[in-house]
Amino acid sequence: MNKGKLIVLSGFSGAGKGTVIKRLREKYDYSLSISATTRAPREGEVDGKDYYFKTVDEFKSLIDYNGLIEWAQYVDNYYGTPRKFVEEEMAAGKNVILEIEVQGAMKIKAQYPNAILIFVTTKDIETLRERLTSRGTETAEVIQKRISRAAEEAESMEAYEFIVINDDLETCVDAVNAIVVSESCKKENRTQFLIDIKRQLDEL
Amino acid sequence: MNKGKLIVLSGFSGAGKGTVIKRLREKYDYSLSISATTRAPREGEVDGKDYYFKTVDEFKSLIDYNGLIEWAQYVDNYYGTPRKFVEEEMAAGKNVILEIEVQGAMKIKAQYPNAILIFVTTKDIETLRERLTSRGTETAEVIQKRISRAAEEAESMEAYEFIVINDDLETCVDAVNAIVVSESCKKENRTQFLIDIKRQLDEL
Repeated sequence: MNKGKLIVLSGFSGAGKGTVIKRLREKYDYSLSISATTRAPREGEVDGKDYYFKTVDEFKSLIDYNGLIEWAQYVDNYYGTPRKFVEEEMAAGKNVILEIEVQGAMKIKAQYPNAILIFVTTKDIETLRERLTSRGTETAEVIQKRISRAAEEAESMEAYEFIVINDDLETCVDAVNAIVVSESCKKENRTQFLIDIKRQLDEL
Repeated sequence: MNKGKLIVLSGFSGAGKGTVIKRLREKYDYSLSISATTRAPREGEVDGKDYYFKTVDEFKSLIDYNGLIEWAQYVDNYYGTPRKFVEEEMAAGKNVILEIEVQGAMKIKAQYPNAILIFVTTKDIETLRERLTSRGTETAEVIQKRISRAAEEAESMEAYEFIVINDDLETCVDAVNAIVVSESCKKENRTQFLIDIKRQLDEL
């Protein structure tokens, strides 16, 4: 059985990463890694679905036992990616998606050189602003903050191997899947196949 | 408009390249480059569809005027890839497929570094032999010759960036298209997009 691939998805806040991931899972059966966090659950959030909610002690213990692929502290809370789920799913041949910001993505790539790093963006910044505004849930100040954040994130786009534009959702989802299929066709990922074919030809 | 891509398809004789290309064109609207040759048309072959049939003088004139991307001589006949069609189609944003053997593929890559080189193979050599046999049109000697040729061609597989297995036709055709879609999402092919996004963010 071929090992599954690790797909790291980052992108501008407002580019629609969540929708892309939801559709990818429906259409192509990807596994989604769920983060661990020490922050309190919000209304409606479910443990094991939205996050694994941990105490600070539990989280630190995970760090000590190398149970997280990467972790970071924001304000007073810890966030991290549990190693067990990712490795078990990949071993079972499933492709696993991680939604994570740039620094985390770099840490993943350092440990899993075959991880596929994809940055999701709107087709332009005007569209990004419209999407953030049309949610209707954010104040003008919050929207401005996110746009400023996008400027920082744009600097990091160069670190990603692939840039996918989320203009039409289906096109975007198909493009992400195409990247994953394409990677599996790369010669470097066909080493065993090449060995087998040459052996079969030698035996003739 | 984005420039179309050049896709070079090689592979074992009997791996089903012709069928793959036919289906690719139906399903994804690729253009197919047609070779020029000095050999005589066979029964049923149509000029401009199967080949561009040329006299030796015409062919040599094409060479002199840099009208061929690559050419080669086999036995007494010349074969080559006309430049005009390939460049016009690409300029019009169409993806162009070339079906060509290994040496030609290398010449193409030298001139078009962005060309995508794909090697099509059966899932194993036993299947290759079965396919060649089941055609029923070839003598045992011809089949043996083709299998021997496969052994030479296998040495060249390493020169291809992608290896696609033609086990199920639709899966194979989708994989070739996935490779092309994936290439267009590569950061190196998003240079103008990155410049535009950064300019838009600077102007805010």
